[in-house]
Amino acid sequence: MTDRSRPSARLMDGTAPARRLTEATAAAAADLRLRTGVTPCLATVLVGEDPASVTYVRMKRARCEQAGIRSRHVPLPAGTGTSRLVDVLGELSADPAVHGILLQHPAGPDVDERAAFEAIAPAKDVDGVTTHSFAAMSFGLPGFASCTPGGIMRLLDEYQVELAGRHAVVVGRSAILGKPAGMLLLGRDATVTYCHSRTADLPSILREADVLLAAVGRPELIRGEDLKPGAVVIDAGYNPGNVGDVHFASARERAALITPVPGGVGPMTIAVLLAQTVEAAERQLGLG
Amino acid sequence: MTDRSRPSARLMDGTAPARRLTEATAAAAADLRLRTGVTPCLATVLVGEDPASVTYVRMKRARCEQAGIRSRHVPLPAGTGTSRLVDVLGELSADPAVHGILLQHPAGPDVDERAAFEAIAPAKDVDGVTTHSFAAMSFGLPGFASCTPGGIMRLLDEYQVELAGRHAVVVGRSAILGKPAGMLLLGRDATVTYCHSRTADLPSILREADVLLAAVGRPELIRGEDLKPGAVVIDAGYNPGNVGDVHFASARERAALITPVPGGVGPMTIAVLLAQTVEAAERQLGLG
Repeated sequence: MTDRSRPSARLMDGTAPARRLTEATAAAAADLRLRTGVTPCLATVLVGEDPASVTYVRMKRARCEQAGIRSRHVPLPAGTGTSRLVDVLGELSADPAVHGILLQHPAGPDVDERAAFEAIAPAKDVDGVTTHSFAAMSFGLPGFASCTPGGIMRLLDEYQVELAGRHAVVVGRSAILGKPAGMLLLGRDATVTYCHSRTADLPSILREADVLLAAVGRPELIRGEDLKPGAVVIDAGYNPGNVGDVHFASARERAALITPVPGGVGPMTIAVLLAQTVEAAERQLGLG
Repeated sequence: MTDRSRPSARLMDGTAPARRLTEATAAAAADLRLRTGVTPCLATVLVGEDPASVTYVRMKRARCEQAGIRSRHVPLPAGTGTSRLVDVLGELSADPAVHGILLQHPAGPDVDERAAFEAIAPAKDVDGVTTHSFAAMSFGLPGFASCTPGGIMRLLDEYQVELAGRHAVVVGRSAILGKPAGMLLLGRDATVTYCHSRTADLPSILREADVLLAAVGRPELIRGEDLKPGAVVIDAGYNPGNVGDVHFASARERAALITPVPGGVGPMTIAVLLAQTVEAAERQLGLG
């Protein structure tokens, strides 16, 4: 039974804003095609046949199609090594018909993923995985955002979450999620704390968070009792069974705003990928 | 009168470790000269005649000389624009006789300093100011550290300060001090909080800091009563009159370890610059 006296957070739905962003992207793609005859093209590179990765790539390609973006799929066999992958990414970087490049993570145990990412030309790094893009996010320079952090920032803006001067706590420090998200939040004048597996007394820090970003990939690590009442909770965890990093039911009783899993951060991530692909095409064609 | 019942922090002297590092650097430079006939060379680029900058560059060049490093000074007139500066830095980047490049900050009101920094070849970025170096520090990749953050990490190690799992608070978020220092601390498994001018209730966050890095350039902003008892306090502020960002007398009563100003971070910064110059020369000559 639900205790109706308990407050319940407003949901930060990502599907509707993602749909609006994708509609705007589709319009921009159509306009580009009209003006230049060129259809924006995203190359998707997948090493091996990990089922989750296959599904992600298929979903991203389907969304591309819906938005009037061509996708060129480059499947590589499991066990592909770094140098072969770097070559493929270098060729795509040099190919004028390709405007954006996505290397699906993880690229496999035989690959130096950092070296592979760096083989993507910054102008085509629409997934925001290169060190160039990271520095751009960190210093507020022109460049592409990592898609999940970029989607999170758009979601926060969509729900008019005030960031300046507020304490944002990022749990997780991966190169394409936690670290760049913290830098984007810092660029918006939040006070930013990075927590991770070695953090001592995580709950005491979580309780100081006006804005909490869970980005660690540990199912339901964070529970309602860890939250500051009225917090804004962004759950970017994706774990098997559509479970986030936040225990939704208990968190909802304490937060003011919370993203559902699924339907929160995920849709925004893909929408940003598409938007950045068209933006990349515009720049490469001398428009935009 | 001193109240002798009050505890007093141990000083984290930077001069002795800086001297030892510089001795090792001088030995490496001598060895390099012996093996290759080449003397490591640092190019120093100074725009205008700001007295503080003139003094800093003079001091750095004098230290180079003491360590057996050649310096090539490139003074440019006040009002030098970005494109001229970029050209000069590009030429130095291409010159095989130059192994490291230092552009003295600030480069003047007429210069896009980020564009200038990016004109420095990453292999010669011994001052750690390029986005390449920032990403290297952020992701634990090979590359040069920004000199002050690099010096701070060496000083912490020198005094065997435990970082893993401890809460490090960085006050200041500049591109070559606060931001990279936070990333280096995070890379060492500290929980890291970035504070800045927009942070609400700074004292409450300072009181949580096991390790506090003041890097904001506001004289004596931080006082002893703001500190957690037993904190390690690194004062990287440099303000007129040899005053740091920390009020030394009151902080000393509460901290366990504290850097003096001057004689703490400053000497380590220059020592790291010299060490990285010789390291750059070694790599460019195919050694090291």
